Amino acid sequence: MTRDTIRLAIDAMGGDEGPSMVVPGLQVALVRCPDLAFDLFGDKAAMERELASLPELAKVCTLHHSEVSIPMDAKPSQALRMGRRSSSMWQALDQVRSGGASAMVSAGNTGALMAMAKFCLRSMDGVARPALAAIWPTIRGESIVLDVGASIGVDTNNLVTHAILGAAMSRAVFGIETPRVALLNIGEEEVKGLEEVREAGQILRARNFPDMRYEGFVEGDDIGRGSADVIVTEGFSGNIALKTAEGTARQLAEYLRMSIGRTLRARLGYLLAKSAFTRLRDKMDPRKINGAVFLGLNGLVIKSHGGTDAEGFASAVELAHDMVRNELQRRIATDVAALKESQEFADAG
Amino acid sequence: MTRDTIRLAIDAMGGDEGPSMVVPGLQVALVRCPDLAFDLFGDKAAMERELASLPELAKVCTLHHSEVSIPMDAKPSQALRMGRRSSSMWQALDQVRSGGASAMVSAGNTGALMAMAKFCLRSMDGVARPALAAIWPTIRGESIVLDVGASIGVDTNNLVTHAILGAAMSRAVFGIETPRVALLNIGEEEVKGLEEVREAGQILRARNFPDMRYEGFVEGDDIGRGSADVIVTEGFSGNIALKTAEGTARQLAEYLRMSIGRTLRARLGYLLAKSAFTRLRDKMDPRKINGAVFLGLNGLVIKSHGGTDAEGFASAVELAHDMVRNELQRRIATDVAALKESQEFADAG
Repeated sequence: MTRDTIRLAIDAMGGDEGPSMVVPGLQVALVRCPDLAFDLFGDKAAMERELASLPELAKVCTLHHSEVSIPMDAKPSQALRMGRRSSSMWQALDQVRSGGASAMVSAGNTGALMAMAKFCLRSMDGVARPALAAIWPTIRGESIVLDVGASIGVDTNNLVTHAILGAAMSRAVFGIETPRVALLNIGEEEVKGLEEVREAGQILRARNFPDMRYEGFVEGDDIGRGSADVIVTEGFSGNIALKTAEGTARQLAEYLRMSIGRTLRARLGYLLAKSAFTRLRDKMDPRKINGAVFLGLNGLVIKSHGGTDAEGFASAVELAHDMVRNELQRRIATDVAALKESQEFADAG
Repeated sequence: MTRDTIRLAIDAMGGDEGPSMVVPGLQVALVRCPDLAFDLFGDKAAMERELASLPELAKVCTLHHSEVSIPMDAKPSQALRMGRRSSSMWQALDQVRSGGASAMVSAGNTGALMAMAKFCLRSMDGVARPALAAIWPTIRGESIVLDVGASIGVDTNNLVTHAILGAAMSRAVFGIETPRVALLNIGEEEVKGLEEVREAGQILRARNFPDMRYEGFVEGDDIGRGSADVIVTEGFSGNIALKTAEGTARQLAEYLRMSIGRTLRARLGYLLAKSAFTRLRDKMDPRKINGAVFLGLNGLVIKSHGGTDAEGFASAVELAHDMVRNELQRRIATDVAALKESQEFADAG
């Protein structure tokens, strides 16, 4: 292992397909990022079977046998009961905790991964509640939306911290040095009960953090427009926004299918325009929106979509690679420490 | 005016186009519902100009001159300051308050309309906070989603009351006698800070209201699937869900446009499949999702989309017509009274 190798811990049992999707995904990622090496956790025989035909990949993989796989439909509390210490998911996280790997990737069940990651890795110093950040396709490119379900209930300090986490991720993943940050809100003047969002806005404006440009409030329809690079919200609304966007994309794809099926003329047209349609369907497919990231833990954890294929899993692995290469964790720690200092300064003054 | 005439109060100045969109919209609605009559509020000269060429419509219209029109971008507090008593929006609402009309329709600014409607009509007995209900297109047809922005901040009793309001609307508008009602939630087991949603679920299950079938929780992606007839949520998340769905539809329509423009083959295909595309675009156009309804006030108020055309405004007018014809207000009053009684019974027992 050379000094520059990036070593990732992989939950080989996550996702609907397990090792037969995960291992080919690692092969795709390795071709693109030859500086990768992997610690694989899961059923050893199954992993060896998949690696038999991939000798180049096998060379950079260390296999670890895990007794337990967390089912995709397990509830978080069940997952913790059945799989703490013994599951591939836990053991891959623990490899990051112990410093053996720089980040962990799993296509396993989100709730279970969230619960285990919090339990195994704990929150970073200065981060009260970690966030789940999604990469959201927009008309302009991609934005980061957080929190999409890790911390439920709105809280001013959380929103400010999440803005900092999101901005650091935007720099590490998209190379945007001063990302545009916005708070998700509704368009009304009188936002009763959500003083927290307004307060967070006041803090972000007043502190004027050097590593982001705070742009104010945006509404739900601004996300897809790419109106900001980082959109910050509380986990309940964020999760509902993400799922609603996925559902709308699926619904419109279904309308498209129905419209095309209707007449011979339309079907003929469809054949001619097929590649355009395929591109469109790809953009509509929520499985292609891959790789949500847990931010604010003592270790990087990347969640790949459970229904993804090898190509999708490879994107999540590359995301992990880029975040490690760009020292996301160190940047976050610096920014969070600066926030804490500025708060103490403000409190003292 | 025969006994069966349904008289509506119309804000003729609402919407981007004002009377030149509203008046033709009334004409379209009158052809479909000949039992309609209208009280129009707005600039009298402008309304007369539009009515000059529509003698049948003019016969059932009573014109009222209003000095003030509320701008589409006025903030709710501004609107109240500038237009209380004197604006077309206020005066149309006041016509409902005084019993002169059975419902009010406006394509004006939502925030202003919400503030004025609450102020002018006040909440019904037993309804702590009124709701804004949207009609949401789904794969199966249409569902009702509420609240989409009238009451911000989650509260158990509000959620239960809103379930009752939504179910009554589903019966009045879609003729579904026992609508399937669900609460919007996120898929995780541990929903910290949102005990209110779980509590509302327990109440809806325990009380087992005769006029609805409570189906439990749904997630954001279930809305477009038509998984329930009525989906109940708190106003902040509901507004974000609605705007996010609109934004996603707009984004995918843009992708469609870009995909088609790319190659000659695709453009040729597009020409052949044009009618299918037009149908698809119509379904994607948020302006066609017309008519949100304020529920729980002492009077029915229907909000038509501000950017709509005459056809869209006519749908909102027909929605008002159907709700009055089916005695939505009386049904809501009965259901809310029954809830109150059952609560007193539960509190006493």
